[in-house]
Amino acid sequence: MLVVMSQGCSPDCGERVISALAAAGRRAERIALADRAAVRADGPFDVALAEVVGRLPGVALVLPASRPMRHVLRREGRGATTVRLGRHTIGDGGFTIVAGPCAVEDEAGLERVARAVAEAGADVLRGGAFKPRASPYDFQGLGRPALPLLARVGAAVGLPVVTEALDAASLDEVSRHAHMVQIGARNMDNSALLKHAGRAGIPVLLKRGMAATLEDLLLAAEYVLEEGNPHVVLCERGIRTFSDHSRYTLDLGIVPVLKRVSHLPVIVDPSHASGAREVVPALARAALAAGADGVMVEVHPDPLHALSDGRQSLTPEEFRVLASDLRALEPLLARHREPVT
Amino acid sequence: MLVVMSQGCSPDCGERVISALAAAGRRAERIALADRAAVRADGPFDVALAEVVGRLPGVALVLPASRPMRHVLRREGRGATTVRLGRHTIGDGGFTIVAGPCAVEDEAGLERVARAVAEAGADVLRGGAFKPRASPYDFQGLGRPALPLLARVGAAVGLPVVTEALDAASLDEVSRHAHMVQIGARNMDNSALLKHAGRAGIPVLLKRGMAATLEDLLLAAEYVLEEGNPHVVLCERGIRTFSDHSRYTLDLGIVPVLKRVSHLPVIVDPSHASGAREVVPALARAALAAGADGVMVEVHPDPLHALSDGRQSLTPEEFRVLASDLRALEPLLARHREPVT
Amino acid sequence: MLVVMSQGCSPDCGERVISALAAAGRRAERIALADRAAVRADGPFDVALAEVVGRLPGVALVLPASRPMRHVLRREGRGATTVRLGRHTIGDGGFTIVAGPCAVEDEAGLERVARAVAEAGADVLRGGAFKPRASPYDFQGLGRPALPLLARVGAAVGLPVVTEALDAASLDEVSRHAHMVQIGARNMDNSALLKHAGRAGIPVLLKRGMAATLEDLLLAAEYVLEEGNPHVVLCERGIRTFSDHSRYTLDLGIVPVLKRVSHLPVIVDPSHASGAREVVPALARAALAAGADGVMVEVHPDPLHALSDGRQSLTPEEFRVLASDLRALEPLLARHREPVT
Amino acid sequence: MLVVMSQGCSPDCGERVISALAAAGRRAERIALADRAAVRADGPFDVALAEVVGRLPGVALVLPASRPMRHVLRREGRGATTVRLGRHTIGDGGFTIVAGPCAVEDEAGLERVARAVAEAGADVLRGGAFKPRASPYDFQGLGRPALPLLARVGAAVGLPVVTEALDAASLDEVSRHAHMVQIGARNMDNSALLKHAGRAGIPVLLKRGMAATLEDLLLAAEYVLEEGNPHVVLCERGIRTFSDHSRYTLDLGIVPVLKRVSHLPVIVDPSHASGAREVVPALARAALAAGADGVMVEVHPDPLHALSDGRQSLTPEEFRVLASDLRALEPLLARHREPVT
Repeated sequence: MLVVMSQGCSPDCGERVISALAAAGRRAERIALADRAAVRADGPFDVALAEVVGRLPGVALVLPASRPMRHVLRREGRGATTVRLGRHTIGDGGFTIVAGPCAVEDEAGLERVARAVAEAGADVLRGGAFKPRASPYDFQGLGRPALPLLARVGAAVGLPVVTEALDAASLDEVSRHAHMVQIGARNMDNSALLKHAGRAGIPVLLKRGMAATLEDLLLAAEYVLEEGNPHVVLCERGIRTFSDHSRYTLDLGIVPVLKRVSHLPVIVDPSHASGAREVVPALARAALAAGADGVMVEVHPDPLHALSDGRQSLTPEEFRVLASDLRALEPLLARHREPVT
Repeated sequence: MLVVMSQGCSPDCGERVISALAAAGRRAERIALADRAAVRADGPFDVALAEVVGRLPGVALVLPASRPMRHVLRREGRGATTVRLGRHTIGDGGFTIVAGPCAVEDEAGLERVARAVAEAGADVLRGGAFKPRASPYDFQGLGRPALPLLARVGAAVGLPVVTEALDAASLDEVSRHAHMVQIGARNMDNSALLKHAGRAGIPVLLKRGMAATLEDLLLAAEYVLEEGNPHVVLCERGIRTFSDHSRYTLDLGIVPVLKRVSHLPVIVDPSHASGAREVVPALARAALAAGADGVMVEVHPDPLHALSDGRQSLTPEEFRVLASDLRALEPLLARHREPVT
Repeated sequence: MLVVMSQGCSPDCGERVISALAAAGRRAERIALADRAAVRADGPFDVALAEVVGRLPGVALVLPASRPMRHVLRREGRGATTVRLGRHTIGDGGFTIVAGPCAVEDEAGLERVARAVAEAGADVLRGGAFKPRASPYDFQGLGRPALPLLARVGAAVGLPVVTEALDAASLDEVSRHAHMVQIGARNMDNSALLKHAGRAGIPVLLKRGMAATLEDLLLAAEYVLEEGNPHVVLCERGIRTFSDHSRYTLDLGIVPVLKRVSHLPVIVDPSHASGAREVVPALARAALAAGADGVMVEVHPDPLHALSDGRQSLTPEEFRVLASDLRALEPLLARHREPVT
Repeated sequence: MLVVMSQGCSPDCGERVISALAAAGRRAERIALADRAAVRADGPFDVALAEVVGRLPGVALVLPASRPMRHVLRREGRGATTVRLGRHTIGDGGFTIVAGPCAVEDEAGLERVARAVAEAGADVLRGGAFKPRASPYDFQGLGRPALPLLARVGAAVGLPVVTEALDAASLDEVSRHAHMVQIGARNMDNSALLKHAGRAGIPVLLKRGMAATLEDLLLAAEYVLEEGNPHVVLCERGIRTFSDHSRYTLDLGIVPVLKRVSHLPVIVDPSHASGAREVVPALARAALAAGADGVMVEVHPDPLHALSDGRQSLTPEEFRVLASDLRALEPLLARHREPVT
């Protein structure tokens, strides 16, 4: 259990937390986070104890994490992590828009989308070369040949590039051509791949698994950081529930929690979460309002004929409207992207 | 399956949908919604067919509803429903803020909160008299005596009042004292209570059950409307999932879907969803950004000593900051609260 | 947190548990269950502490319950509860088979099924008069007129009768005609109805809500018991999850847990859980093997033309085979229906 | 959508299904399964249509699968798959008991458990060398050195051996020392690993992912079979839900469905599902009763001091009692392990 204090709370507040935990039989120690104090207590999360402690003055958040985390939690003197992709930085207080097609299909189509999203104000170009698919008979992506193509088009429109890897071999390929590698929801539990990404050193976009708890996601990031790679961006993309009006259920409530407990930037993928073009803009705006550092949305020049996930892709024109909405809202919400107080 | 068309799409688009459905063996008929056309197809929802139809030009949304709904879906010439509580109207394009304590505890405390939320810009006062609780040993609310107290305080601060009923008897009591009755998540499946609310005629705030699908929620509203009561506001308040960083998982993706398919106003309760004061403001802002017609948040003068749900209640000062944030964002998002195109 | 000890464990074991809890800051007290000792600790459930305590010698189970329960947990000197319906007893070590149509449709059909299930070895006749339905346009049951009909047919074939009530009024009606009232999954959270059932005194079949945790179910039973009615049978009927091969996900793992921590009989409803006739027999056998005190299955003379839930109803012949299978397995599993050691 | 017919149903039944599907606009074709007919319909699963078709005479099951599967579904003339490990065969109508420690810790301990489970009647020895763990700081297994050790001990006690692989490299190692490789729940979506297992040819124990639907699991198996490896055993091990009385929710209802639609053997892991020693025997018996071809249970000589998952491990004595119970029940349930009629 980790008790994160409000910024500027007096040392007395921290002492009161430690006393309350001691009264409940927990050994606790004060630790310093980036911009304020915290108390780490022995033992696992305890809902009732969290409620008691959470009511004490000066307590900002009580975190349900039972296993030690060495790197992923905020610590004083280190500030929030910013992740640099070419000339763009994620997590510096701005709002990052990642956009592009689900999968790279051909150079002409990719260039058309890339130019459109760059002009509309996107910061990063996405595009899948290696696609993890539930069925062996679905389109698995163009593979290796898509990588230099993606690099060329990104350079042409002036955007850094992020693309997914599925195993150690494809991650090494991606490292040679892209600014950032994505580890998808289906591989968040793949500890062999996480360790390899940690050793590779390339910035990592780590998506939450569809059955992952907060702690699972933080520990997956911990695998990468423990290997010496600090350049990790977390991504909420929807979890699996009974709710059938969308493909997954976007769990936006995890955004403010992640921002409080970790120093890593957090972005949101409303395209995979909803699986429906009509819902993407509302959820992208909501992600911004919830304090996320960015969104990742799929855009396709001709969604009706996309080889994968056309149902959830915006047209370039729909994306232009969304990007304009987000840029208009961004300044009013800047305060909520700051390190949590 | 209900296929909702984009506003202003040509009649050809609708014909193409009917043809596509016929090719898939579905009898389909054109129906008129408030501000545009729709096609209702026989038979149940079909994910793949929805994807095919959803790609046709002019299609705005395909709704996973398998049972007929007579009243709850948008229909031409009727416009979106607005629900009037005293001088305030929910669903007229403005953003409604409902605020107040979880439970009414005593007159002095209630008046303190009511005055604070009224001054901060709340539109409606909430406060529980009859509390549905998981345990018979939890505080069950003051019951009947709380109702005149609530009415008096609401009148004193100039706010209409909403409070929950648990059965026919308490609903009749509530009808005598409040402007709106809440049917809580634990009673959304209670068809006897829904029918009674339909006959009572008082405006109804209907919360989504914690295991309810989109269709379940719409059909619960249908029970009320079928009895002749059109004054229903829907409320998303979180569903039960494995995700343990918050008490429930707020399913904000349902907001744009409900706004598209129904003429009823939609509000969001981030307090019960998250169960944590620190997360409430981020989710309230996200609800606004997602296009909701309002939010309902709990405020308590002294959350540490609340008889119920103190953990999730904002202090009056925290509420003041939130309300100010919401009012600043409201105009930029007005377009997204309009009837869907 | 409740720590249930193994039968016959030495007093030392209990002392060690209390010491371990004290070391973790929990005040704990020894209490006596029906057939062995337990330790009740202050404070909420704590997964890690439960694991530590669960490894101590003599510990049988650690229960995730954070709220006090006065009646529902096993206590020494009281033995397991048995619930008497006419000449049949549920929970006496035998295996109870409840069978009948989902809804009563007409007297002839009901009598045909009743006779068939009685001959095949059923112990109790079920049949719905008041049906809780998601849609107001679905068949809501015959209502009051079905009750005397059910009573007549039950008497004719020599079986006691169970049927559902939806509110106080229908529960009073049911009390006059049936041996047991069912409170359905959709009303498990309806505290007004639970209290009324407690005061009515009639045996209650309480189904687990589709989003209810173990603790929620136990506390719902506590509502009934607290009002003075000890005749409660718990029923697992499936929970709502993403798993789409069946209507709900039958959570059989709750059966041995309930049998350990409570003195109430536990039965299982595989018909509503699966929603598919083909799966019902396998899950009914599994319920028996998991230690349940009985099953409740739907049988219809002509499932193709049932007014509700025909998809999940066995034909009389399918039921005959199932009942015969269950009766053959019953003696080999008798030991596992005994009060837990 | 796949419509599986009852064994021995007349050709007329199949024709009626095809007509009903045609009336609903679905192109359908008759295909032959191992022991009876089926109808495969174009398009996705459709709950209502499934209900309509499922009521037709002769229909045994309607399967929610929307993507083509070439290998995993039952087909006439091929019979059910049996998987041979040394002298033991899984899926031949017998009931396979796999047992052993969660992780291999040292040779002496492994040998003690192996000897105990062999004497109690286990058929296969399990033991983890490479452990997939949520945290990088949890015990990750002994790795490569555990493999020859496992092989030696298995040979000494006369049991074939199964152990998990995490990536291509560890799978190649496992292939050299074990009779069967396990692909764990955390890697069920790892298509790179599935393809590698398909090319390796070694028998594969494929566990269901904790968020996998029926179709996801079948398609994961399809990855292995498509690469030419037919030796696959499916394993249900619990899914992630809100239900907190056990670690995961064992979804036993999938067993009869899998047995109907696929020719692959199906086993159940109650140890990981429940996470609690006390619940394992009840769920293992339930798995047998539900028609599974086997169970896999964890056994540890000293669960209190296991390096991983001691909480869920049976002692050798507890396992002896369970194995004896299972062997006593096995003959009465043999009919339910036969290819579905």
